[in-house]
Amino acid sequence: MGKLVGNAIFGQSGGPTSVINASAAGVFTEALRQDCINKVYGAANGIRGILEENFYDIGMEDPKELELLKTTPSSALGSVRYKLADEKDDGTDYKRLLEVFKKYDIRYFFYNGGNDSMDTCNKISKYMQKVGYECRVMGVPKTIDNDLTETDHCPGYGSAARYVATATMEVYLDAHVYDTPMVCVLEVMGRNAGWLTAATALASYKGLGPNLIYVPEIVFDMDKFIKDVKAVYEKNNGNVIIAVSEGIKDKDGKYISEYGSDLAKQKDSFGHSQLGGTAQVLAGIIKDELNCKTRAIEFSLLQRCAAHCGSKTDVEETFMAGQLAVRYAVEGQTDKMVAYERSEGKEYKCNFKLVDLEVVANTEKKLPREWITEDGTGLTQDFIDYALPLIQGASSPPLEEGLPRFAKLKKVLATK
Amino acid sequence: MGKLVGNAIFGQSGGPTSVINASAAGVFTEALRQDCINKVYGAANGIRGILEENFYDIGMEDPKELELLKTTPSSALGSVRYKLADEKDDGTDYKRLLEVFKKYDIRYFFYNGGNDSMDTCNKISKYMQKVGYECRVMGVPKTIDNDLTETDHCPGYGSAARYVATATMEVYLDAHVYDTPMVCVLEVMGRNAGWLTAATALASYKGLGPNLIYVPEIVFDMDKFIKDVKAVYEKNNGNVIIAVSEGIKDKDGKYISEYGSDLAKQKDSFGHSQLGGTAQVLAGIIKDELNCKTRAIEFSLLQRCAAHCGSKTDVEETFMAGQLAVRYAVEGQTDKMVAYERSEGKEYKCNFKLVDLEVVANTEKKLPREWITEDGTGLTQDFIDYALPLIQGASSPPLEEGLPRFAKLKKVLATK
Repeated sequence: MGKLVGNAIFGQSGGPTSVINASAAGVFTEALRQDCINKVYGAANGIRGILEENFYDIGMEDPKELELLKTTPSSALGSVRYKLADEKDDGTDYKRLLEVFKKYDIRYFFYNGGNDSMDTCNKISKYMQKVGYECRVMGVPKTIDNDLTETDHCPGYGSAARYVATATMEVYLDAHVYDTPMVCVLEVMGRNAGWLTAATALASYKGLGPNLIYVPEIVFDMDKFIKDVKAVYEKNNGNVIIAVSEGIKDKDGKYISEYGSDLAKQKDSFGHSQLGGTAQVLAGIIKDELNCKTRAIEFSLLQRCAAHCGSKTDVEETFMAGQLAVRYAVEGQTDKMVAYERSEGKEYKCNFKLVDLEVVANTEKKLPREWITEDGTGLTQDFIDYALPLIQGASSPPLEEGLPRFAKLKKVLATK
Repeated sequence: MGKLVGNAIFGQSGGPTSVINASAAGVFTEALRQDCINKVYGAANGIRGILEENFYDIGMEDPKELELLKTTPSSALGSVRYKLADEKDDGTDYKRLLEVFKKYDIRYFFYNGGNDSMDTCNKISKYMQKVGYECRVMGVPKTIDNDLTETDHCPGYGSAARYVATATMEVYLDAHVYDTPMVCVLEVMGRNAGWLTAATALASYKGLGPNLIYVPEIVFDMDKFIKDVKAVYEKNNGNVIIAVSEGIKDKDGKYISEYGSDLAKQKDSFGHSQLGGTAQVLAGIIKDELNCKTRAIEFSLLQRCAAHCGSKTDVEETFMAGQLAVRYAVEGQTDKMVAYERSEGKEYKCNFKLVDLEVVANTEKKLPREWITEDGTGLTQDFIDYALPLIQGASSPPLEEGLPRFAKLKKVLATK
């Protein structure tokens, strides 16, 4: 295929990660140096920015700031959660996208996100093919959940895992300073897949991690949980560290976080709602059962934006995946997502490949059952061997007055 | 005064910090090299370890591990919250301490902690003087709360402040990725003093911090709070970041965290208790008032154990304060606490001095009213100028397989 000449647009979608902007840095720097790409645009708030013709002219940005994107967490362009309807049900958005693509001569479309975003990307790709508008469409993966199929791991996971493991080790030390019982419940993100919660096992591997780990892949049984905790409590002088995925569910499919919801619907003494999560529900239950001090710690947003504790391996691979998305597209590839493939052998090496958007859209990869210990409360050495290479090397933003210097984009809107 | 020959003991007390072991490293390395000090002991769980004759022989430790203490968070020896009775009310503990001091020929006593611990230290000092047992007693300050008097700042504050400011900047970016309203409430430690919550103002100074900051020094008024939030919400497209001290109270002295307590006393649908904090209470209130997405983030233990994001300035000063405590004691000083004094002038320089234990015991230093903006929702430039030098330089533990390598002490118990 010959080189396709025109403009390029890149959008960020879904929940941010601490390295999502490293993808942007890779796409932008590579697109800006390609002769066949004239203008490089960044969509404000993903697909919505394209629909509304809100996008930034990346050529106007200072290259130094684009470089800083590598260590700037969260979606610098703004993100969106927007589910495209099926075109056969409602073609409005598609027609509008085609109109915008034509108006701005968009011939390269890069979309950065998780499985929902790959679904968006896939739908747009198929539509442009159907109407015969020549445009190279390339998905750029991103998710701390690590749940995309057809890729060994996902950009963003290594950094989130490194932060979670590091913070868990630190909390472990803190939670062991008194000679009195204390049960600490750590809540990690992950609605359906336990990859990130499993990263706390890296702390256990270092001797400073949870005694018990619960992931959504295993049906959560409250009675067994209480028994598990009591057993560790007795063996361990009352010191128990537990890690749970936010998304653990019981056998009826009810989220454990919902156990508190009947209460949450009630109002406090001033007539206001209370909010609460999985760790808090479980800490409350343990407090009642064991009558001991408990603490619920939710890593919350911290785990997905901790660029100050990123994985260098993750940042570099993510940047490169962004660059390669552009190169592959320029070489004629379309309708694909860039993916990671791990080389066979003891030494970790990450190769890149392309996979069909169709295949990755809307599918989820869960922790293999055999990487979870038989009793469902820990991870095996196979998981450690898998995850450890992904967290190697420390990445953090440059400092200015002792604090991170994050990228400051000018965000010059493209002229309509 | 001549050199006093004998043994030394060091204990850690109160809530840990990410640099508390840097004090230990300073005390230990200095004490081990002093000719007049024979054995150096580390008390297990502070004063309790002394009362129970549980202490470690620090001379048996690998010097490399003692060096690693500098970047190992939480109390490596174990901590304690133990309030000594007044000797005139109950002299039991004092007699026991004297017995232990005599038995082990303890002539140097170093105690590391906040105002409660300085009270313990002071009481022991006065008792030993009273009974004529020659022992040099030296307090070594420690607290993320930064609330000790007679010292410009406290060991542990700079690192906690650096972590809090960094994480706040990251959360700010994360909380701004969607073009939909979101109110985020960050909860920072500090029961009576707002120093650490004020550190979020460093993030605001960098343009990535809270719009509103509430500290315990200002009486919390719920109606004003809701008005404040609504005003920012309207001005800011629904994006609001709020930082609150855990210890904010209303005009009746009721903690805001207790507003949810009537509810907390209730049970969830499975008959179990719910727990919750200040941020959660406020997020619930805002959710009801503004009918928007809210998120409560509690920095919890993370803020006091984040050695991976420490302040180099803090770590170095803390280590030096530990060393100096020993040197001063060897030179004949007793009944004092090591304190920091900031040089006059533009350039930051920290000097060391000694202050009377009597004066620092049980007193609290709060944020000066004039460093809080008139409307009570922010900090002035004076605070920024005060705090910024304390967070300079990045300190983090050495890495091993991508994760922190913390000190591993052998903890060889002293023979009884």
